[in-house]
Amino acid sequence: MVMTSTDALVEFATTASRHAATPAVVRTFVDTVGVALPGYETDVLEALRRWAAASPVGGDATVWGHDEGTSAARAALFNGTAAHALDFDDAAPSMPMHPSAVLWPALLAWGEVHGSNGTALVQAFIVGQAAFRAIGEALPMEEHYPRGWHSTATVGRIAATAALISLSGIDRGRARHALGVAATMAGGSIANFGTMTKPLHAGLAAQDAVVAMELALAGLTAHESQLDHPKGFFALFGSSTRARDDLAARLDWWRAEWSEDLSVKQYPSCYGTHRAIDGVLDARDSMDLPVAEFTSIDVLVHPSGLDPLIGGTPTSGMEGKFSLPYTLVRALMDGHLGLGSFDDGAVTDPVMVERMSRVSVRTAPAPVDRPDLDGEPYAEVRITGTDGATVVRVVTVTMGDARKPLTDAQIDAKFMSCAEAAGWSASESTALLSRLRQLPAPDSLSTLRDALRRAA
Amino acid sequence: MVMTSTDALVEFATTASRHAATPAVVRTFVDTVGVALPGYETDVLEALRRWAAASPVGGDATVWGHDEGTSAARAALFNGTAAHALDFDDAAPSMPMHPSAVLWPALLAWGEVHGSNGTALVQAFIVGQAAFRAIGEALPMEEHYPRGWHSTATVGRIAATAALISLSGIDRGRARHALGVAATMAGGSIANFGTMTKPLHAGLAAQDAVVAMELALAGLTAHESQLDHPKGFFALFGSSTRARDDLAARLDWWRAEWSEDLSVKQYPSCYGTHRAIDGVLDARDSMDLPVAEFTSIDVLVHPSGLDPLIGGTPTSGMEGKFSLPYTLVRALMDGHLGLGSFDDGAVTDPVMVERMSRVSVRTAPAPVDRPDLDGEPYAEVRITGTDGATVVRVVTVTMGDARKPLTDAQIDAKFMSCAEAAGWSASESTALLSRLRQLPAPDSLSTLRDALRRAA
Repeated sequence: MVMTSTDALVEFATTASRHAATPAVVRTFVDTVGVALPGYETDVLEALRRWAAASPVGGDATVWGHDEGTSAARAALFNGTAAHALDFDDAAPSMPMHPSAVLWPALLAWGEVHGSNGTALVQAFIVGQAAFRAIGEALPMEEHYPRGWHSTATVGRIAATAALISLSGIDRGRARHALGVAATMAGGSIANFGTMTKPLHAGLAAQDAVVAMELALAGLTAHESQLDHPKGFFALFGSSTRARDDLAARLDWWRAEWSEDLSVKQYPSCYGTHRAIDGVLDARDSMDLPVAEFTSIDVLVHPSGLDPLIGGTPTSGMEGKFSLPYTLVRALMDGHLGLGSFDDGAVTDPVMVERMSRVSVRTAPAPVDRPDLDGEPYAEVRITGTDGATVVRVVTVTMGDARKPLTDAQIDAKFMSCAEAAGWSASESTALLSRLRQLPAPDSLSTLRDALRRAA
Repeated sequence: MVMTSTDALVEFATTASRHAATPAVVRTFVDTVGVALPGYETDVLEALRRWAAASPVGGDATVWGHDEGTSAARAALFNGTAAHALDFDDAAPSMPMHPSAVLWPALLAWGEVHGSNGTALVQAFIVGQAAFRAIGEALPMEEHYPRGWHSTATVGRIAATAALISLSGIDRGRARHALGVAATMAGGSIANFGTMTKPLHAGLAAQDAVVAMELALAGLTAHESQLDHPKGFFALFGSSTRARDDLAARLDWWRAEWSEDLSVKQYPSCYGTHRAIDGVLDARDSMDLPVAEFTSIDVLVHPSGLDPLIGGTPTSGMEGKFSLPYTLVRALMDGHLGLGSFDDGAVTDPVMVERMSRVSVRTAPAPVDRPDLDGEPYAEVRITGTDGATVVRVVTVTMGDARKPLTDAQIDAKFMSCAEAAGWSASESTALLSRLRQLPAPDSLSTLRDALRRAA
């Protein structure tokens, strides 16, 4: 009997992993909760709070940094949206997706309500990370994402459900139904990038994974091999010709390798801007003129590098996060990009708008003199000063990538600055950070909750 | 300036209609609430209730036939799922969709919470019916549905949001955001037909339209021309080459004509089985032999006629609703199809399974001797008796279609039988029916609520 993709995913998610918790798990956990804290101070969370106030739901799950309990589904919605609100959460260098902003909110909400232990949570997270990438490959992502599907929301619902299958110990029959329900809820359009709905996608994915699991446990049925059905997930969201008989092997591979394919962000902007930003910041150090005295910034990226970005002149801080011209000029002017770099006013400042007009973006499979980069993501940045001198940088691996990782001290510093931006005192932040780092301990969740619940 | 599809839909939904309430509006209302009552007695609603009990939500919206209030979103989810649970709710002959099971639950839930008047509710329903069909055409449906998208869930989210835009009087800017959020939530896979997730699709569509509106009113933003964006709704769910510049005209056309494109069901099975069932029941009257003495039933339908159906031998009552062999043999044996015709045991009865094996289904653009039917939905049924005699029927218009409508007395009888199946007494049912028929009155909603709230 042939193993279907659904079979492979269910088998994978219901089989206990023997992998030890890697330091990468704890790093993504600290980073995801960290970026969510200032995420709560954004317009999108203000809108969500206003919405939720009209129909309050009680429960045992925690909205991070807030002291009231709510249902697992709503906590997942809030925390997922907050974690992605600033586009400061981690990304996967191999393909466009934001895994941790979906997985941690779903897992933590479920774990709190069902009394999971921290060790199981870590294993379930690894299942989700592997599923995110293996499902992304199987679509394949290079067809799925350019069409306009926001993979964080589409693949995210399946990956988070796989993670919850692992965490919950649900039986295989119901696991199939949960995947079928999650697949039918999947959606999310890239047209909404640059609006509040983009971060909402991460929250919806986390919420729907929780709801799909809850419904399956309550007895709801779906097609038991949904992903493989001729009108199921892969048919609707992926290529019609792709063979997917290697999914089991790819899941196993990614279970071991996922942490090598992770980038913790240094800048709160779309990951698609990061290689070029690194290039500009590096070039900046070699420039002799004052930074404003440039005549042009020419950027060259792989054609797929523009998929998540917004062209034209940004009109808001949120759009600025998806703009190469804005992020690059801002980086060149300030020498860094941080939470304060994306105010609406900073983006629409006429001086900035004029400077952005000096940025041009082109695409090519590889730079002319670097044919070795063909097929790999890269950014070439060429800054020409008013003196005619040109500085060129080519970047393939961003700072924060597992191949060029942030140190623990840098991760902690990012966490502390995020918490500070959200109004946390240094002692509160330090206490929470220490709890977050204890996640892999079996009984971590109950003490963690005490640290995460904080009167606003 | 060119008017986009999003422009056209917003303009249409925010412009007051001058159409009078047609009798068809009240008929669909009676019929939708009627089929929802026994819908509540099904497994899928049992699962939903079990799920909801774990995270109760209070509010002013009514779960039809139940006495507790809940949020508009949850009422829409429950009522939409219940209305579609038996596949007994109305359909559109022109294209595959179940408009009323999405629209009424969304509208009534919103109307109750926001104190809408019945007259506005009727106009908003007409907006939703027109939007359902015009958006379906614009995709176009003949590409969308065969791919595997359940239009009731995908188009349904947009159409129900358009209806709520009309009902709520929301401003145009926020209306655009609501459509953008609804579009990003859209999904629903035909792979789940024959499982509990199929009726859930109608509930999810109604729920998400309510939530999208609530979020937009709370300040959430989305792309303001989402439907038209190169990575927006039409690009993701429709043809990439279809011109959509006639949407405004088509919306106006359908506002006047929607009620001519509606079929109230006589049988609680997939609409795709109805033409053939009508043919079998008509042929049955002309057969001389006892009904079990047939050697074959040969069915011929348009190729698109199989899209919503499930091939092979059904294994449950729910799958039986999507099976031509089961519904046709059942109709031939019993002379009718009703709520009691789809027990799991009836479907898997070995005698039935053997009889189903005598049914063969083929497709052709038209029957050989009826080239005039090319392009039109039809079913040709050919029953051959053990005596070698053959009876043939060709059906294009089902009983209950607006071109062959049920009488008010038949609608009422269907309502009463549905209510009875749900355990309502005749006097309770009659009282509710009378309230439902008063919907177009301005103050109908408050008195309607009293009739709809009933201790279980």
